This record gives sequence, C-alpha cells and structure tokens, in this order.
Amino acid sequence: MAGYSNNKDRHLQRLRRIEGQVRGLQRMVDEDKYCIDVLTQVSAVTRALQSFSLELLDEHMAGCVVEAAAKGGREADDKVREASEAIARLVRS
Amino acid sequence: MAGYSNNKDRHLQRLRRIEGQVRGLQRMVDEDKYCIDVLTQVSAVTRALQSFSLELLDEHMAGCVVEAAAKGGREADDKVREASEAIARLVRS
Amino acid sequence: MAGYSNNKDRHLQRLRRIEGQVRGLQRMVDEDKYCIDVLTQVSAVTRALQSFSLELLDEHMAGCVVEAAAKGGREADDKVREASEAIARLVRS
Amino acid sequence: MAGYSNNKDRHLQRLRRIEGQVRGLQRMVDEDKYCIDVLTQVSAVTRALQSFSLELLDEHMAGCVVEAAAKGGREADDKVREASEAIARLVRS
Repeated sequence: MAGYSNNKDRHLQRLRRIEGQVRGLQRMVDEDKYCIDVLTQVSAVTRALQSFSLELLDEHMAGCVVEAAAKGGREADDKVREASEAIARLVRS
Repeated sequence: MAGYSNNKDRHLQRLRRIEGQVRGLQRMVDEDKYCIDVLTQVSAVTRALQSFSLELLDEHMAGCVVEAAAKGGREADDKVREASEAIARLVRS
Repeated sequence: MAGYSNNKDRHLQRLRRIEGQVRGLQRMVDEDKYCIDVLTQVSAVTRALQSFSLELLDEHMAGCVVEAAAKGGREADDKVREASEAIARLVRS
Repeated sequence: MAGYSNNKDRHLQRLRRIEGQVRGLQRMVDEDKYCIDVLTQVSAVTRALQSFSLELLDEHMAGCVVEAAAKGGREADDKVREASEAIARLVRS
C-alpha cells in the first residue's frame, strides 16, 4: 500500500481537474486564443501539478520515510537518499 | 489569428500527449504505485508543460511583439510589458 | 552601452544587497544556525536574484529587442531567439 | 550542533564562491556588459544556490529528521512538517 492511499480519492479528483485544465488548453489553442492567455493558463496547470507533488511528497515523508527511519540502518539511508533525489527533480523542473 | 497558428497542429498534438500523461498519473495513483515513481512522472509532465510554454512564448515574441515593435509607440511598450509579465509568471511558477 | 544603463546604480545597489545576503548565509553556517533557517534565507536570496534578472530582461526587451525589431530582418530574428534562450535558462534554473 | 556541521568547511567554501560570483555580476553591470551575458551569469548563481540548498536539505533529512523519526511521536511529525514547508519554499522560489 502506498503512503498516500488514505487520500487516494482526493488525489484522483485533483488529477482529474488537472486533466480538465489540459483539455481547456487544447480548446484555447484550437480557438486561436491569445498566446498570453494560453500562457497564463499553463502557469495555473503547472502550479496545480506542483501542489499535487508537494502534498504527495509530504505524505511520503510522514509515512515511508519516518517508518524506515524508525527501523534505522540501511533502509533509513536509502529512503532519505531516494526522497532527496525526488526533491532535487522537483526543484529543478 | 494568434501568433502560434502556424504550429497549431503540433501544439495540439503536444497537449494531447500531456493529457495522456496526466491520465497515466491517475492510473498510477489508482493502482497505488510507489510515491517516488508518481513524483518522477509529475516532473516529466511539468517539464513537458514548460517546453510547450517556452515555445509558445518564443512564437509570440517573434510574431506579435516584433510586429508591435516595428510599429513603435504605445503598442510596442504594451506588448513588451505584457510579455515581461507572462515571463515573470513562468519563472515564478 | 547596455540597455539597462539608465538603471545601473539601482542594479548595483541591488547586487550589493544580494552580496550582503550571501555573506549573511556564511555567518549563519559559521554559527551553526538551524538548517531550516539557513534554507529560508537561501530562498530569499534566490528570489532576489530572480527579481533582478526579470527586471534586466524587461529592460533588454524594451531596449535592444524593440530596437532590433524596428529595423526588422535578420537582426530582429537573432535578438528574439537570443532572448528566448535566455528566458528558457531562467525558467529552467 | 546543526546537522550539516560535518561539512561546514565545504559549505562555507561554496558560499564564498557564490559571493565571488555575485561580485562578478556587479563588475559586469559596472562595465555595461551585454544584458544576455549578465543573465546567463545570474542563472549560474541561481543554480549554485540551488545545489547548496539541496545538499543542506539532504543532510538535514539524514540527520535531524531521521533522528526525530526514530524517537517518534509529536517531534517526528513536527520535523517532517517543517521539512515539507522548507521544500515547498524551495520548489516555489
């Protein structure tokens, strides 16, 4: 079971809203909407994805990372390194 | 006609691929995939949106902004300010 | 003469403040300040650098790019491409 | 003692290099260097700050967060929430 499973419904709802926003972008391009308005909408989708990933990461740390840390040893190190790498990808993307 | 109209098909294709990636995220969450793998996939979607917006912005500058600048005066100033604000939103999101 | 020369003094003042912030970071690390507080301060420096670069870019577009666009032709294309590449570096960093 | 204390010298060296880069920016502006070149250099400083903060965060998680998690309870929750907020500031800045 993944660490975010308690909030699965909320995450799915969120992702469906993001999917709707991406379809909205397609409509805007299809109707030749003004570039700047399309760009504003892209920023909104990017921020929504960012919020989603920050929440997922928070749940992951409060769940898997804390659990592994409680056990200690090699697994704790691995989980921290893995989380750090995921954070670096988020910060750099 | 929007400045990006020449590449409309390519943009739509790109956005449909992004929509597919977001549906892929829903599947991952639905199947309780490991958080870190979901996060890696979110970073990929964010980068795809970023590339899309950078291309749109480039076309906008090469089109609308250059045109307004050629006319000069108030409209040139307005277009530059508007583009600068859109860039700031991209950089900060 | 660079496009930002009118605001040179203000830019230099800004960069000197950023230099002071970076020295403040060194003091914090030297005094073993709490990591999270150091990180908060790093975010402040990053945002200050971001504001500086957005302003510089705005002046560059209002100056060099608009000028080149008014002349048209090859130089306009070159300046727009160059600005687009600088924007992509900012968005991705 | 802060969690990053083992690497204090390396961190200080890094921050001194960043300070040097910011002074380099001042020189560039003072000598009216071309905007695009200044912007490229700003991106380099931003990336250097980003690497510094990602490393600090990694050490913080491997140190303070893992320690608190091993103890469990309220302190573990607090440390995770605090780290999550710091990550959100990094991702959004």
